[in-house]
Amino acid sequence: MRQSQLFGKTSREDPKDAVAANARFLERGGFVFKNSAGVYSFLPLGWRVLQKIARIIREEMNAIGGQELFMPALVEKKYMEPTGRWGVDISLEVLGAGEKEASFVLGWTHEEVLTAIAKHLVNSYKDLPFAAYQIQTKFRNEPRAKSGLLRGREFIMKDLYSFHADEKDFESYYSKVREAYNRVFSRVEVKAVYTVAAGGVFTKKNTHEFQVVSPVGEDTIYVCEKCGYAENKEISSLKAGSACPACGSGVEEKSAIEVGNIFPLGTKYTEALGLQYADEKGHKNYVVMGSYGIGLSRLMATIVEVHHDENGIIWPESVAPFQVHLIELGIRNHELGNIVKNTAEDLYNRLLAKGVDVLYDDRADKTVGEKFADADLIGIPWRVVVSEKMLEKNGFELKKRNRANPEILSAAALVEAVENKKDLL
Amino acid sequence: MRQSQLFGKTSREDPKDAVAANARFLERGGFVFKNSAGVYSFLPLGWRVLQKIARIIREEMNAIGGQELFMPALVEKKYMEPTGRWGVDISLEVLGAGEKEASFVLGWTHEEVLTAIAKHLVNSYKDLPFAAYQIQTKFRNEPRAKSGLLRGREFIMKDLYSFHADEKDFESYYSKVREAYNRVFSRVEVKAVYTVAAGGVFTKKNTHEFQVVSPVGEDTIYVCEKCGYAENKEISSLKAGSACPACGSGVEEKSAIEVGNIFPLGTKYTEALGLQYADEKGHKNYVVMGSYGIGLSRLMATIVEVHHDENGIIWPESVAPFQVHLIELGIRNHELGNIVKNTAEDLYNRLLAKGVDVLYDDRADKTVGEKFADADLIGIPWRVVVSEKMLEKNGFELKKRNRANPEILSAAALVEAVENKKDLL
Repeated sequence: MRQSQLFGKTSREDPKDAVAANARFLERGGFVFKNSAGVYSFLPLGWRVLQKIARIIREEMNAIGGQELFMPALVEKKYMEPTGRWGVDISLEVLGAGEKEASFVLGWTHEEVLTAIAKHLVNSYKDLPFAAYQIQTKFRNEPRAKSGLLRGREFIMKDLYSFHADEKDFESYYSKVREAYNRVFSRVEVKAVYTVAAGGVFTKKNTHEFQVVSPVGEDTIYVCEKCGYAENKEISSLKAGSACPACGSGVEEKSAIEVGNIFPLGTKYTEALGLQYADEKGHKNYVVMGSYGIGLSRLMATIVEVHHDENGIIWPESVAPFQVHLIELGIRNHELGNIVKNTAEDLYNRLLAKGVDVLYDDRADKTVGEKFADADLIGIPWRVVVSEKMLEKNGFELKKRNRANPEILSAAALVEAVENKKDLL
Repeated sequence: MRQSQLFGKTSREDPKDAVAANARFLERGGFVFKNSAGVYSFLPLGWRVLQKIARIIREEMNAIGGQELFMPALVEKKYMEPTGRWGVDISLEVLGAGEKEASFVLGWTHEEVLTAIAKHLVNSYKDLPFAAYQIQTKFRNEPRAKSGLLRGREFIMKDLYSFHADEKDFESYYSKVREAYNRVFSRVEVKAVYTVAAGGVFTKKNTHEFQVVSPVGEDTIYVCEKCGYAENKEISSLKAGSACPACGSGVEEKSAIEVGNIFPLGTKYTEALGLQYADEKGHKNYVVMGSYGIGLSRLMATIVEVHHDENGIIWPESVAPFQVHLIELGIRNHELGNIVKNTAEDLYNRLLAKGVDVLYDDRADKTVGEKFADADLIGIPWRVVVSEKMLEKNGFELKKRNRANPEILSAAALVEAVENKKDLL
């Protein structure tokens, strides 16, 4: 993509009242646009990152047998009333013109809706187990939305639900989801701590959260540095320096961002909505259920919190909006400048032909300093510079965003280097 | 995918109060689930179709320079008030607990939001033209939702917006979009009539709709069979038998489904929200705008209206949920039956290895009749049958959904046939 055509513009100034790095860099870099408190648009650069995260999550959910579907955002009262979750304070109600009372809320979770669908599809033990997920916009009444994409009124979420004949089968799947989540977080390069937590409005049981340690995190967790055992402060009797119940070592108190959670739901929803199956002997039993969330927009923000320096974002290769940022520094209306320009165009086309995602900074009205500052802000992993200085050396400058020193390579060596790195992704 | 694992079940019975073919077959085939009037879930089969439609639309929008982004569903009052579209009767308002007055509506269109974003990104004529689109869930207050996915409270839409320095540039892009739309409709195999229409709540100018003639259509259009000129009844002074203004031949009255629309918006939105650019001389001008919609869920329903027979859907290959429906008819616990089963498993794996999307009916508890009826209902283009009878002939039965007679082919010939058809997609 030519940067001169990109719908999105960088800014030198931090947005007002934005403190968290994700809010500052994602807005300044032209990844997102803040429409209202806690309500963002994803501009083309940001949408590319989000789609890459979505793809990784889809691959890992499909790998554990999750089937993708798509449920409505409009959730009728008939679904939420039987479980006592109609009118909870995090819900947003929907009213048509002239209506006095809402009959729909905006879906903030879909246990009820999917359980009701499953009632039509599940009869016998042969129909179990199964798991279904969606990637969808979710909504929450969040009067104090803050921290950029970390806590919004509207956000993008992957929610997986699994249905089982018994607790044992559920537990074996729960472990599989845990492993799949670990693979997702490892592929997007955040270190997530598996943390025992409370169930909130989902369940009375203990649940598990995936927490990424970060100073902007709103959660407080106790982590044992030795064995990794962690508890969320909400449910924990630990304090800083306590002995970890798992290994007896001391625990540390940390701020953390919850990027995922997994909930054992037992038969809470299936009893409330009447989802039963007939076992081998024909006896009716309630289906055992789990639900498992990852906030995609929050994960994108968390990646930025973990991967940035004072100049901007340093995207992991797996989720970067482009693989290569090609920067052309020819002087306008100048013979050598034209050679630089043509050389850059040629390299752009060669990289595209090799299937490399390139953002090509072809902008004629920007200085060298502006182009370099934008490249650091946007944070694409590989920066390639075409300039007169480089042409004199018969090469191109290749630099990784997170390394200080560039290399000088020939065009052929450069294309090969970029291609090989691509294989390492 | 193994049909025994598929989350979705066929039904022999038409849903209550569903008359339109799309509602009957999409629900009975397990493509969608009706949650509320005008509110549907897309089950895995239906979601696959919708994603194939989305992919075709994305390819055609990208080909005309459209950049994909994603705007919020929560649209604040500040956006809709300046254009007089706050509180129009098709909007659904959103309220948090304890709020008496809404400050958000659910987005049913995004001219205002995108114009407001563009104000931050457009300064000069050099920033124009550009075009951006999204594929997103939209919402409408639709008290009389009906006809399955044709008219819903919640639906999936592609909305493209273009921004130009002047009318001339706009008109040239408008033609490009028209051509792109023709390619989309041709690829999904519906015949869309380009129809002059009214602008509704979008513009006072005439606009254009893409109308698919169908008895369940809610629109009435006058079409000239000779030159193809068409007008929507809403704005037309024509009646059945009138002389077509373009060629003088007679026009016919038809019911039709609006699957797309393109709106010349002039400067209505850019004036209301103050989107200007500086021209070469530094003079400020209002940006000229167009918007262009395709309802994906409605298009999916329209495809079914156009492509079905009394037994079920006949999906065009480009949007079918799978390319091949492989049906195994071995008798259980029987020597020959086991050979049939193993042969089918082997063919399934061979097709998967060739990259063919296969739905494999491996269900042990269904009769031949049930399996064939389900295959006709689901409507996958190619049906392959593995049975004892076929094995005796040393082959497999290959049948197109829309043809009466099957062919008998060897395994190698079958894989090759399917592969070659694949290339024709």
